[in-house]
Amino acid sequence: MERLGSDRFGGLCVSIGTGIISFLITWYLIPELSNLFLSANLAGKDLNKRLNDYRVPEGVGVIAGAIYLVCLFCIIPFYVLHSKDDVSSTMLTNLSLFLSALLSICCMILLGFTDDVLNLRWRHKLVLPTIASLPILMVYYVTYGNTYIVMPFPIPQLLNVNVFDLGFLYYVYMGMLSVFCTNAINILAGVNGVECGQSIVIALSVLLNSLINLGSECWSEHMFALYLVCPFIGVSCAVLYYNWYPSRVFVGDTFCYFAGMTFAVLGILGHFSKTMLMFFIPQIFNFVLSVPQLFHLVPCPRHRLPRLHPTEDVLVMSTVKFKRSDVGSLGSLCLFILPKMGLTKMIVDDEEQITITNLTILNVILRVMGNTHERTLTIYLLFLQLQTKLRLLVLTLIISTTTVVI
Amino acid sequence: MERLGSDRFGGLCVSIGTGIISFLITWYLIPELSNLFLSANLAGKDLNKRLNDYRVPEGVGVIAGAIYLVCLFCIIPFYVLHSKDDVSSTMLTNLSLFLSALLSICCMILLGFTDDVLNLRWRHKLVLPTIASLPILMVYYVTYGNTYIVMPFPIPQLLNVNVFDLGFLYYVYMGMLSVFCTNAINILAGVNGVECGQSIVIALSVLLNSLINLGSECWSEHMFALYLVCPFIGVSCAVLYYNWYPSRVFVGDTFCYFAGMTFAVLGILGHFSKTMLMFFIPQIFNFVLSVPQLFHLVPCPRHRLPRLHPTEDVLVMSTVKFKRSDVGSLGSLCLFILPKMGLTKMIVDDEEQITITNLTILNVILRVMGNTHERTLTIYLLFLQLQTKLRLLVLTLIISTTTVVI
Ligand SMILES: [Mg+2]
Ligand SMILES: [Mg+2]
Repeated sequence: MERLGSDRFGGLCVSIGTGIISFLITWYLIPELSNLFLSANLAGKDLNKRLNDYRVPEGVGVIAGAIYLVCLFCIIPFYVLHSKDDVSSTMLTNLSLFLSALLSICCMILLGFTDDVLNLRWRHKLVLPTIASLPILMVYYVTYGNTYIVMPFPIPQLLNVNVFDLGFLYYVYMGMLSVFCTNAINILAGVNGVECGQSIVIALSVLLNSLINLGSECWSEHMFALYLVCPFIGVSCAVLYYNWYPSRVFVGDTFCYFAGMTFAVLGILGHFSKTMLMFFIPQIFNFVLSVPQLFHLVPCPRHRLPRLHPTEDVLVMSTVKFKRSDVGSLGSLCLFILPKMGLTKMIVDDEEQITITNLTILNVILRVMGNTHERTLTIYLLFLQLQTKLRLLVLTLIISTTTVVI
Repeated sequence: MERLGSDRFGGLCVSIGTGIISFLITWYLIPELSNLFLSANLAGKDLNKRLNDYRVPEGVGVIAGAIYLVCLFCIIPFYVLHSKDDVSSTMLTNLSLFLSALLSICCMILLGFTDDVLNLRWRHKLVLPTIASLPILMVYYVTYGNTYIVMPFPIPQLLNVNVFDLGFLYYVYMGMLSVFCTNAINILAGVNGVECGQSIVIALSVLLNSLINLGSECWSEHMFALYLVCPFIGVSCAVLYYNWYPSRVFVGDTFCYFAGMTFAVLGILGHFSKTMLMFFIPQIFNFVLSVPQLFHLVPCPRHRLPRLHPTEDVLVMSTVKFKRSDVGSLGSLCLFILPKMGLTKMIVDDEEQITITNLTILNVILRVMGNTHERTLTIYLLFLQLQTKLRLLVLTLIISTTTVVI
């Protein structure tokens, strides 16, 4: 036990150290390399800036991703040493899982960057994360192969069922988790700093969760999570530094895929996928709210992000205008319910033309808080995320206390 | 032994099957996706075509690389089953090595594609393969950690030293092997079909070598090689189909990096790096010949590939013109020796202006065989490669027979 304690401390030092180093390298390299992006025509205009002639390098997430991978390659020996439980086969299993995690993330960065460069179609966004999750699924299959899930809170108490074997469905669940995590971050984007900021908040939640559980008996999974999450926080903070309002770089789909896949891998191999989904609550809310537009029940414009006010330096809700006849029965149901819930603002003019605010969490925030500056909107979103997580933490503590009492 | 035999047969079937499937997928997807490359401005002009307004998609090696990875992800469970020697820790070690191989190749494809898109500088070409070889070095360190090399032919007989511990230098050697393999293929390029063709010839040599050694006691390493090399041959043949004269796609640096890293990984983890270097003899010749230009002892133009004849449909040697005063003492030495050896043609005019043919194996072939069609030049090179390998095979057989006799 003494030895395990020191291993944990060593692992913690290595992961935090790697986090700091990866931050410094990314912070140094992004401005060095961003000219290459401009000359390769990998650049975009910032839609919400007054002077939008200035072109901003796009897809610099690939720099962050590559540095993240290199840092993790370098700590493979440390990871193995710290996860060594004297039993060599446990060490080798951990090594395989760690490598499969890196392989999935690397493959996702490759596919994400390909998407940024080649502008793949929307349907590919569902296929690519599935492909990239293959390594973890395969390695999970040949090493653990454990497809039981532990039932969440009320079920064991009510039905006396603690675990349930999902079988093949467990792999489907893991694949879908990757698709969800990557796309959930990808559709909550478009405002300076929001892709990166939300990822950092989720990563910090994982860090906190793993630090708390480092004392528990499943500390090895949480050590694994710390190894993966600290360098992620490092590179993301460096990206946020340049991506914060006013953005000097755009992160691109590469970063969203990279971040999403890292979280999916953490959830799956760290065995806390349900906790991970809870960390995604604002993203889930945004996804559910976006469903009518994503599946074209309601018309969906090319850009759904908030728009710059014509005269003032604030963002206003973006809208979409269409005829009532363009909307099917399911769409009409959405248009009946959503405005009642205050999730969109609908205006119907004389000629049966409908204007609604786009169905995104950013528009909902603007609706509740009023028009604000772009930087403030990002801060509101991050604050909302933090608040959700704090409430969850309190709830979890209450539940665990109650369970112990029962 | 019975069981091992059937494992080998099963493994062979899986690897050949994967090769065929990967060929079909690549063959189908390249034309589907090549429009995306054109619209993303990832395209180049073919310098050796009369009508060179036509733009050819560049960097489609990334499609081949991605398909290769996906196919190998899918056969991870088969690989593990076939390498299972009842001892679970051997199986897990093999799995780790296999994953590290995939990780290195995946990382190399990512960095290669980044190079194609961002046009990185020459010095990066030395750094990127070193970075990508980190996973195999690290996993080699934590699993085998064996840094002994077996001495080649004459040394054991003469000095009575069979093995030699290289220690840390072994890792340096492995890193340098990756840098060498990737760049050796990258500098023997520029003529339709030559990048891909030479890679296929090397891969076929590996296939043959591994098939022969599948009956030996180190069959497990050669099974590993077969798993990696068959899908490589599959995707490369599909790429060659479109890259053959007249090229409809260009493979880009991505493919050269991908192929080179695959060979480096095969050589290192299959424990036949010296044999692999022998398969690279034409590339080594080309590299040594290019050294005076690569290190700027002699002026080096931007493109060194053979040029189209002004009127006929044949390629002629490309040349570079410079003043004698531009060349240092080492360069002068090269200019003294190389023409004597027939490796370049030098013309000195009245005003001390020197014209030499560029120092590449393609120019040497043109010098020996006369001006030929682009397609024929590629065939000559591939034929030269095959011939070298056949001679090597005969030599190896003679040596091994002699050694046994001694
Ligand atoms: Mg895109
Ligand atoms: Mg290049």
